[in-house]
Amino acid sequence: MTTPAPKGFRFATAAAGFRKSGRKDIALVVSDVPAAAAGTFTLNAFPAAPVLVCRERLAARPEARGVLINVGQANACTGEQGVRNCLAAVEQTAEAVGLNPADILPGSTGVIGPHLRMDLWQAVIPALAADLGRSGPEDFAEAIRTTDAFAKFAFERLERPGGVVTVTGMAKGAGMICPDMATMLCVVLCDAAVEPGLWGELLREAVAKTFNRVSVDGDTSTNDSLFGLANGCSGAVFDRTNVRPLAEALERVLGRLAYMLVQDGEGSSKVAEIVVQGARSEADAECVARTVGHSQLVKTALYGRDANWGRIVAAVGRSGADFDPEAVRVSLCGVELFRDGRPTDVDFDALLAEPLAQRDIRIDITLGNGPGAYRLLASDLGHEYVDVNASYRS
Amino acid sequence: MTTPAPKGFRFATAAAGFRKSGRKDIALVVSDVPAAAAGTFTLNAFPAAPVLVCRERLAARPEARGVLINVGQANACTGEQGVRNCLAAVEQTAEAVGLNPADILPGSTGVIGPHLRMDLWQAVIPALAADLGRSGPEDFAEAIRTTDAFAKFAFERLERPGGVVTVTGMAKGAGMICPDMATMLCVVLCDAAVEPGLWGELLREAVAKTFNRVSVDGDTSTNDSLFGLANGCSGAVFDRTNVRPLAEALERVLGRLAYMLVQDGEGSSKVAEIVVQGARSEADAECVARTVGHSQLVKTALYGRDANWGRIVAAVGRSGADFDPEAVRVSLCGVELFRDGRPTDVDFDALLAEPLAQRDIRIDITLGNGPGAYRLLASDLGHEYVDVNASYRS
Repeated sequence: MTTPAPKGFRFATAAAGFRKSGRKDIALVVSDVPAAAAGTFTLNAFPAAPVLVCRERLAARPEARGVLINVGQANACTGEQGVRNCLAAVEQTAEAVGLNPADILPGSTGVIGPHLRMDLWQAVIPALAADLGRSGPEDFAEAIRTTDAFAKFAFERLERPGGVVTVTGMAKGAGMICPDMATMLCVVLCDAAVEPGLWGELLREAVAKTFNRVSVDGDTSTNDSLFGLANGCSGAVFDRTNVRPLAEALERVLGRLAYMLVQDGEGSSKVAEIVVQGARSEADAECVARTVGHSQLVKTALYGRDANWGRIVAAVGRSGADFDPEAVRVSLCGVELFRDGRPTDVDFDALLAEPLAQRDIRIDITLGNGPGAYRLLASDLGHEYVDVNASYRS
Repeated sequence: MTTPAPKGFRFATAAAGFRKSGRKDIALVVSDVPAAAAGTFTLNAFPAAPVLVCRERLAARPEARGVLINVGQANACTGEQGVRNCLAAVEQTAEAVGLNPADILPGSTGVIGPHLRMDLWQAVIPALAADLGRSGPEDFAEAIRTTDAFAKFAFERLERPGGVVTVTGMAKGAGMICPDMATMLCVVLCDAAVEPGLWGELLREAVAKTFNRVSVDGDTSTNDSLFGLANGCSGAVFDRTNVRPLAEALERVLGRLAYMLVQDGEGSSKVAEIVVQGARSEADAECVARTVGHSQLVKTALYGRDANWGRIVAAVGRSGADFDPEAVRVSLCGVELFRDGRPTDVDFDALLAEPLAQRDIRIDITLGNGPGAYRLLASDLGHEYVDVNASYRS
């Protein structure tokens, strides 16, 4: 089944030539009516120009008509000229499709430093405008890919008295991924009617439980942006009394996209789900999960299909979390390997050869001194990662 | 010139068979007279058995006659049996060389989990005892290697009125290296007479400035141990009034060993010296240096000889340090690439092609809002790292 678009949204994509490959590299989505709009953005101290513009727009007014994304230049570390270019690109595009420029939220991804190619941008606008309504969500996801091995989209449908509600998300990975309040780039669209304040809350909650709990390389990008638009075109209306199903649908869509980000982590062959329980606090649980998930030694062991529980225990030990070492338990793919300060008496190499050859690896860590829990998705580290990242810019 | 031993120290090495290769894997150094002894040990919450034993011994009495190190089994996560094995191995060895077991400090390195091979240990003791006085510092350094590509030793000499003082250090790397108060394994010997309290201070200061400022993979080991013995056999005496030259010699020896650790970081091809200045505090400077030095994206760019300043700036931006982004400046190999929130106007690819092909890469980061400074040595991340670490245990 083709990924459905929520009602009242039209898509456009085009090839501006920002990328040498000639692939599509510019994407626009427009809502037929004003939509409740919210976003979460990078906490990096060097936010890109489009991040600055979006923060200002959404702070002034939580409504928008569209999202415009370019690939190739991140428009980060580009100073005031970068902001002027961003505004000019939005203005020219808005004019071509008959919208107010202030109603469009911009996003960029690509190399840090270079300015937007304004000549290419101006030249592509007629083609982009002409395509509006011809592309769909999958074309949009395809156009915003950079080093992603595959385009990422997901949707959910809800039957409601007022009509069928669709939530559709499109995202890109795949590098500089350790989202901190947002991801690299993600657009989630919904045709339910939701008051903007509530929509923003739903979005932030879902992001906290999904995108903010994945890590490919521990590097938080300068451009992380997640946009959410809800335009009400389905006829279904949500408020605080009935919003739970929509919140859950939103979380499922973002959860699937977050999983895909790790699955497609540059050159990754594994998705490790690290589940920490029994910590003194959620912060301690998070600290343990992130220390294990970012450990180069754990990541290379996963890549090598090595049941190296010693590296997991060593990472837990240096995490800084507060716990009794004797109470810690560690399981890999459901097999308990460490307990009471000692390895358990199982032939783990034989037991785990088959599970460690799979893509999905579960690591359970129980600290045993409280209710704190955290779940993190992390990728492994292998030759493909080095290949992709040692020569990305050139 | 062969590395000289300080006066009054004798060395022994042997092949116990802890390693399949048949290489030497056990090393002992003995002082002819009681020596002032100090050590710094891992802060990992799962300290190995020998770390527990040494902490207790040095807390009770800051003197020792020798250090005994085995390679192959880390004796970590081995519980009470691990401590009993450690004590038994020390006792049997001490007996064979006519020492009090309480005067020997033990250290282990190798795979986490397995118990010491006590059968092999007992069998090798006669050969080890027979070798005492036949091996030298370089044999000792050779015997404690694991994945190290080369043995690591360094020395300094000081002319003093009482005699010539020698400071000789032997260390091993090369993986699970992010020393936190100590390194993987290092023994530094000195034939000056120094009161144990002062010797401990000198050692901790030198470690803080050297080993605690290197990072290969951000993983702090369960076994990090640094031992220092000063036996007074040179005839030269130091106290607080004249100790500066000895402190400097010690720092130079440990500094050279710490450099070698990074140079030999598992599969590393680069040593990046990350110098952060102008931070609000030293803690902020350290935080920036460690975020940049641990960034997988920065490390793979170094491996790829890519002047990717954007990744450095993004890492600075996510470090959490407090600074004005507009005031940040970044130089690579002496070429300023980023200033006033923008890339500088230099043809950095052309300028840096040659410097980035070298082993030693300097990264200067100025934050511009205070006196805080920090210097970190870090390695790169490439295919050789993955090769070494994806299959280490098996």
